[in-house]
Amino acid sequence: MVYRVGLLGLGTVGTGVVEILQRPPHPLLQAVEIAAVGVRSLDKPRLVPIPPECLTTNLEGIVSDPEIDAVIELMGGLEPARSLILKAIDHGKPVITANKAVIARYGEEIFQAAAQARVAVLLEAAVGGGIPVIQALQQSLRASRIQAVWGIINGTTNFILSQMAQEGSSFAEALAQAQAHGYAEADPSADVEGWDAADKIAILASLAFGVSVPRQAIPCEGIGSISSTDIRYAREWGYTFKLLAIAQRAEGQGGEPTLDIRVHPALLPVTHPLANIHGVDNAVWVQGDPLGQVVLSGPGAGRGPTASAVVGDLLILLAHLQTGAQLPNPLWGFAASPPVASLLPLAEAQSEFYVRVLAQDRPGVMGAIGTCFGRHGVSLESITQKECHQELAEIVILTHSVREADCRQALAEIQQLPQVAEIPSLFRVLR
Amino acid sequence: MVYRVGLLGLGTVGTGVVEILQRPPHPLLQAVEIAAVGVRSLDKPRLVPIPPECLTTNLEGIVSDPEIDAVIELMGGLEPARSLILKAIDHGKPVITANKAVIARYGEEIFQAAAQARVAVLLEAAVGGGIPVIQALQQSLRASRIQAVWGIINGTTNFILSQMAQEGSSFAEALAQAQAHGYAEADPSADVEGWDAADKIAILASLAFGVSVPRQAIPCEGIGSISSTDIRYAREWGYTFKLLAIAQRAEGQGGEPTLDIRVHPALLPVTHPLANIHGVDNAVWVQGDPLGQVVLSGPGAGRGPTASAVVGDLLILLAHLQTGAQLPNPLWGFAASPPVASLLPLAEAQSEFYVRVLAQDRPGVMGAIGTCFGRHGVSLESITQKECHQELAEIVILTHSVREADCRQALAEIQQLPQVAEIPSLFRVLR
Repeated sequence: MVYRVGLLGLGTVGTGVVEILQRPPHPLLQAVEIAAVGVRSLDKPRLVPIPPECLTTNLEGIVSDPEIDAVIELMGGLEPARSLILKAIDHGKPVITANKAVIARYGEEIFQAAAQARVAVLLEAAVGGGIPVIQALQQSLRASRIQAVWGIINGTTNFILSQMAQEGSSFAEALAQAQAHGYAEADPSADVEGWDAADKIAILASLAFGVSVPRQAIPCEGIGSISSTDIRYAREWGYTFKLLAIAQRAEGQGGEPTLDIRVHPALLPVTHPLANIHGVDNAVWVQGDPLGQVVLSGPGAGRGPTASAVVGDLLILLAHLQTGAQLPNPLWGFAASPPVASLLPLAEAQSEFYVRVLAQDRPGVMGAIGTCFGRHGVSLESITQKECHQELAEIVILTHSVREADCRQALAEIQQLPQVAEIPSLFRVLR
Repeated sequence: MVYRVGLLGLGTVGTGVVEILQRPPHPLLQAVEIAAVGVRSLDKPRLVPIPPECLTTNLEGIVSDPEIDAVIELMGGLEPARSLILKAIDHGKPVITANKAVIARYGEEIFQAAAQARVAVLLEAAVGGGIPVIQALQQSLRASRIQAVWGIINGTTNFILSQMAQEGSSFAEALAQAQAHGYAEADPSADVEGWDAADKIAILASLAFGVSVPRQAIPCEGIGSISSTDIRYAREWGYTFKLLAIAQRAEGQGGEPTLDIRVHPALLPVTHPLANIHGVDNAVWVQGDPLGQVVLSGPGAGRGPTASAVVGDLLILLAHLQTGAQLPNPLWGFAASPPVASLLPLAEAQSEFYVRVLAQDRPGVMGAIGTCFGRHGVSLESITQKECHQELAEIVILTHSVREADCRQALAEIQQLPQVAEIPSLFRVLR
């Protein structure tokens, strides 16, 4: 048997895929022939040998070519990736994609089309690079009722935060280092603002909870507001900063089931399993009943790991064909026509908080701050005066677990206190 | 559709399986009916409601009953588990098992029988409880060439070592605590001597490297010889003790490819991903090319996690049936008729070593010890005199990476030095 694959895109990951297939690590992969590679420019030098007659700029031609058995989409971006994926499905071709952006926004449309056409869409490489988290959430872990999925699923921001923690760098210095290493792009917004992590948690939530999550409804805060001062103080209390992508079951105000989904930096106790994920590594922490807590970690990006995940999907597809199956595996992909999740408004979410206040160094300030919190039902773990800068004292408050809206209302009032100059930091503490 | 399942054994895990199926977490599982449960005693009180007519002591009857669609073997032990599994296969029934002992010893026989009968044998629950490590090694990760699999895959010993490290307990005290918690059996040998971990690494090695590993050929050292003194010294140098199960590619003496497989305690740098796995948790660290390093961790045993893995396999089986497949998935199970691995003799393995020597507190002792090591080509990182007890000084040596046989020959000579009283500790240092 020869299994003819069409590749859309020959960038970093595409090159890695070709490299793996040149020396197939599993006998089933020996059947694969890269029959066509769709690229933007035919003249660009390539790191892997591709026969010139396989290279084409006609990507539409690949997805509609009756000679092509399956399509691997590695272009990234929304269009033309979405249209090409849909067209491939329409022509009865299974699709393997590493494109988190397109799945996070058009996953429902794509998986409904795939279900109708009875073809598979596999996406292991879309989240967590080489970490086999998609398959785990689609299959083994579905025997438990998943309660929560927390992820460090953006390597760039984890590198920046690791640098800030280990080297004492400022955010700007750490970002520059990430750019120098090629971990961050010239415009780092998608990583630093948490948008990339939001794409990925939308996908993980869909798989874990069987619901469709509107991507634009995910509250998203970046890491740009974390100062080296905050990192230092957090460490003194035994916490580390991480950009977390969170999806978990929660009760709404009326007790109705909702999905609490959000991306933001948070302080984690250094003993938390996600606290020891350093550098560009990714990790996903899954809590289920009766499963307990499972953590999958590893390289979240890069040519080799991501290509390994793509070829893993190809292997799974080939193995499936060998069984004589007539239909794709029902555990692949999202639930068909999933209900849209009712999302918990961020204001209703419960967290502990870390707050840093700059106030005049006078008696009574800490009492005034404490009184404001108390008036809004925010009970405190500690108020500590830290360093003084000129006439301003730095006061750090750790709250117990409270409703976010209550904490913010208290802070709005504290901001108005005559002794208070500024509230430079407000972060959630998770455990 | 009704899918009639026969359960062999209704102990801890069997009870957990019934509990999950009472409230199926996935729609496909609604088809499952527990049609028969094979037990030793009909009179024993049960934690889950099973209709009396389903309970039977006739286990042979279950595996040959034409009304039963699949068999779940949760008895443990070698016989009659092995014979019942083979008989179920013989009657064309897929088998799900949590039995690491039987798979480690008879996996090849069982999977050959399954291949001939064209039925599936699934074993996610046999290693690592709820951690989806088997499926990962069988599927996604097979797109990389696996170089090494290291596991903390025995919760009992990890609990004991964690207690010793955190509480400063002796081995005997920590073992007693493990027994009090129900983590260790009255006869703890299978855990403490590393035999359970050896069963599991035999299975992981078969999956990762596609070779058959004779279980009895796996060198195995337990944790009983680790003293609280060693744990304290190790911590001073930044190491922690873990019972590691290791399987990795290595070169034999003639440069031929071999499998380096072993179970023993080792010192790991506290920054190693496996060093932060505490208590009864398990973790498996996989290194592959071009995958990089992936760690899967979580609860390695217990009713809920193990039952979740068993039901996960059942879900995978049901999903497979929905595709109209005629054959089991070729990625399940071991490679058919795998070659037997050529194993690297432990004497040839390379490690750094931690050695603790008791010697008379006289000038020249450290020089004499260093000279002996040097004579056998063992280069040292440090020789440090620690505490003195009566007239004996405690000397701790850390070597560079050396051939194990060379280190042991040097130690045999050191043992003969007139100033040396005893060599109470010799452990490998891995990183």
